[in-house]
Amino acid sequence: MKIKVVPKEIKGLRDNYILFNPEFLSKLNITAGELLKAYPYSEGFYVISSDIVEDGQAYLHPKYFEKNHWEPEKILNFEKFSVENFVDIIQRKVNGKSWTPTEVHSIIKAIDNNWLTPSQLATFATACEINHLTDAETVSVANAFYEFSAKLNLKRGPVVDKHSIGGIPGNRITPIMVPIIAAAGLTIPKVSTRAITSPAGTIDSVELIMDVDFTPEETTEIVETTGGCIVNGETVGLGQTADKLIKVLKEVHLDPKELMIASILAKKSAAGSKYVLIDLPTGRGAKLPSKQEARTLAHLFSRVGHELGLHVESVISPGIKPIGEMIGPALEMKEALRILEGKPASLSLRRKAISLSGIIFEMVGLADRGMGAQVAEQYLDSGKAFNKLKEIIEAQGGDPKITSEDIPAAEYKETVTATKDDVVYTIDSKALRLIAHTAGAPQDKFAGVVLYVDRGEEIKKGEPLFEIHASSSSKLDQALAVAKENPPLVLEKMVLEHITDVV
Amino acid sequence: MKIKVVPKEIKGLRDNYILFNPEFLSKLNITAGELLKAYPYSEGFYVISSDIVEDGQAYLHPKYFEKNHWEPEKILNFEKFSVENFVDIIQRKVNGKSWTPTEVHSIIKAIDNNWLTPSQLATFATACEINHLTDAETVSVANAFYEFSAKLNLKRGPVVDKHSIGGIPGNRITPIMVPIIAAAGLTIPKVSTRAITSPAGTIDSVELIMDVDFTPEETTEIVETTGGCIVNGETVGLGQTADKLIKVLKEVHLDPKELMIASILAKKSAAGSKYVLIDLPTGRGAKLPSKQEARTLAHLFSRVGHELGLHVESVISPGIKPIGEMIGPALEMKEALRILEGKPASLSLRRKAISLSGIIFEMVGLADRGMGAQVAEQYLDSGKAFNKLKEIIEAQGGDPKITSEDIPAAEYKETVTATKDDVVYTIDSKALRLIAHTAGAPQDKFAGVVLYVDRGEEIKKGEPLFEIHASSSSKLDQALAVAKENPPLVLEKMVLEHITDVV
Repeated sequence: MKIKVVPKEIKGLRDNYILFNPEFLSKLNITAGELLKAYPYSEGFYVISSDIVEDGQAYLHPKYFEKNHWEPEKILNFEKFSVENFVDIIQRKVNGKSWTPTEVHSIIKAIDNNWLTPSQLATFATACEINHLTDAETVSVANAFYEFSAKLNLKRGPVVDKHSIGGIPGNRITPIMVPIIAAAGLTIPKVSTRAITSPAGTIDSVELIMDVDFTPEETTEIVETTGGCIVNGETVGLGQTADKLIKVLKEVHLDPKELMIASILAKKSAAGSKYVLIDLPTGRGAKLPSKQEARTLAHLFSRVGHELGLHVESVISPGIKPIGEMIGPALEMKEALRILEGKPASLSLRRKAISLSGIIFEMVGLADRGMGAQVAEQYLDSGKAFNKLKEIIEAQGGDPKITSEDIPAAEYKETVTATKDDVVYTIDSKALRLIAHTAGAPQDKFAGVVLYVDRGEEIKKGEPLFEIHASSSSKLDQALAVAKENPPLVLEKMVLEHITDVV
Repeated sequence: MKIKVVPKEIKGLRDNYILFNPEFLSKLNITAGELLKAYPYSEGFYVISSDIVEDGQAYLHPKYFEKNHWEPEKILNFEKFSVENFVDIIQRKVNGKSWTPTEVHSIIKAIDNNWLTPSQLATFATACEINHLTDAETVSVANAFYEFSAKLNLKRGPVVDKHSIGGIPGNRITPIMVPIIAAAGLTIPKVSTRAITSPAGTIDSVELIMDVDFTPEETTEIVETTGGCIVNGETVGLGQTADKLIKVLKEVHLDPKELMIASILAKKSAAGSKYVLIDLPTGRGAKLPSKQEARTLAHLFSRVGHELGLHVESVISPGIKPIGEMIGPALEMKEALRILEGKPASLSLRRKAISLSGIIFEMVGLADRGMGAQVAEQYLDSGKAFNKLKEIIEAQGGDPKITSEDIPAAEYKETVTATKDDVVYTIDSKALRLIAHTAGAPQDKFAGVVLYVDRGEEIKKGEPLFEIHASSSSKLDQALAVAKENPPLVLEKMVLEHITDVV
């Protein structure tokens, strides 16, 4: 049936709703809640009935008009469409069975085309979380994600990438690694994200010094010119289908590891990467508490990567405490720039960026095994990496003359000092996150925490321990109060437990 | 924050959306997708942003205005509300852990108040389906369903009920059992439903002879007067929380058996029942394929019922073929009336209604074990049951003088006859459902199928096998075509398989 659609956004609703006037609906013999497919386009739309719509037309999200370059009043040919078949496929996993590649392809296509309701998506995700996917199923999911993804068409190579399984505050290695790797002549089309749970994501930091929102074509051009980029995954849109699923996963707090691996590797493939290094921060408080779990995940990454034609290696890195000393979007960008400039900064952050870049050099044969870090260090210390970053900044519309000094500081700061001589037993990432969030990060770019002491350090009474940054005195006060309740520095105790039972 | 709400229904959306103008939202510092709670009411509403709403007010589903007797322009006090905690509780079941009674109570309360999104509800249901509930958890769910349910306040007793685990065509025993049981002085507040997958549900049939939509207060009065009723569960609203969950379960085709048991028993408790008989049709093609599965379910019903203070017994009944000979809303009502009138009709249907009524008599001590059916038969054959049905029809606003002859027949009918002498091996319920649905049942009350032969019967060429009823010649033709492709009568074969391998 042919229906006139006009663009009208209703935020908070999923994009794929189509609104009709109730009388018009009954004339068309359609019921609210039914799924309509627009031919020849593959999109599916769920029918909503409301008297806000004029008789004889329908409201559709404006993004479809943009994407398909439709006039504001477009006549579309709709047909009713049944999702029963997809629900039956999902059911197989609920019942503990395995999917064929064809079944996986059908489901991922249905997700890509918005043919599933949020409940059906959640059932799919929950069944995957509980009943797991086989390697073959994971490969099929990754292949389908890849098929439905936008792609970068890079002519230069070898194309490499790295991915950190997030959550560690101050783990801002990307802005250091990308220029080291590109300076060595390798190609690294880095697609990053904003913070999910941490006080800053790569994009939250990097957008302070250059643009990050580019189309796949623009991204391809930047990478062809400079060898690298750091762009926003949300805009470049690699692995859009995976992102639709991730939106639901966040709502229900699920993270089925096979879907995560398929999503990461499909995105790397879509960017054209052949060599991928996975960073697995491991330890108490991290996403991966034990090395055994990290190893299992690493092997799964390698096996699935192999089937996709990727050379995947993983590193287990320390995940029990922050990497850098500065936490928050602007603070982390400042620290990364200081490292590129050769100025005093976190040694852990510098060493991690060098180590991981070095392993990538070893993976592609640019350095012998065990010798990569030395090569990486030369690119960093010679200033070649910093020069490469300037090239990338220029290509991404930023000011290539920027230095760490140009990153503004927050207006309100307060230093917390030691109340007695003591020893720092460890640093509590969870407390740090809470303080930084309370101070306003990541929405407030300049909010965050600077650490002055590290794990194992002896501290003297009156010595500065850490500093909280905020953009208002009220946020600063709130963050200080939170820090009092949740101290980010865990001090050493000589009595861990005292048992007083008298037998 | 105080906000003026006006009633506006947007069908196809869940009821618990609240629509704001985008500018007003940003003034209020609320984001689309957030959950607002209305104080002192417990309802939660998901925020939608749309420029269809006037600045300074919000649209809310009219049902809240009805329920709370609000003026069309009501000022409500809203607060932001986080669902994180509920998601964490759901997570425990995803991870294979058990819930405490308090956790179960929190989740069911959240469902009752619409605090969960469809995705979160689906995750809850999927986790229950895959990881199951313990008896204690099932009891907690049932207790919470009961707590949040509307209730009947019956003074008379003993209150009994029966529940069939559906799906068998022509299983129209309720309109026969309710009057038999009420005629014996017992109280049976029967709350029934429409068809889900079958060609007719009890309500689809019964509403042809009386009203079925009553409030809990009206239902209580009908039952106090007559001893029985047959009312629509959707309107009387017992176990509304369970029904919210069931809506999602249908969308994702899940039916976690513990949630089903909790829902059924909580509804029976809410109606005031103390004795409940569960009918478990079992056999190939039925919901329960094996007696072993049926027994397991029966024991679970008994254990959970016991904890809720109910005396629960179950019967395993034949589920491989239809019970009555007439399939479809009007046809099934007609057949049930014929049985009450003592006219020729399906012996299976008559016997099943008598057997199950008899067991209820035995459960309450009205008859010795093994003797209940005889008592039930007397109430039926003496006409006392039919007289009791007339009382109930009158109390439910119907014409008590109605007979089976008054039920109109469909305008279009066609009989299918045997093409050769043969033997009926069995009757295919699935094919029957398909034919009846194609003919228009249950929406078309008069569509359906009449069976003229039964399992094991010898048939002669030219003998009538079954008759299709429809309200238009096109529907009749479609149903005849479907019947040709899917014969409802499976004929005996003397060669089941022929193996031709020559070794």
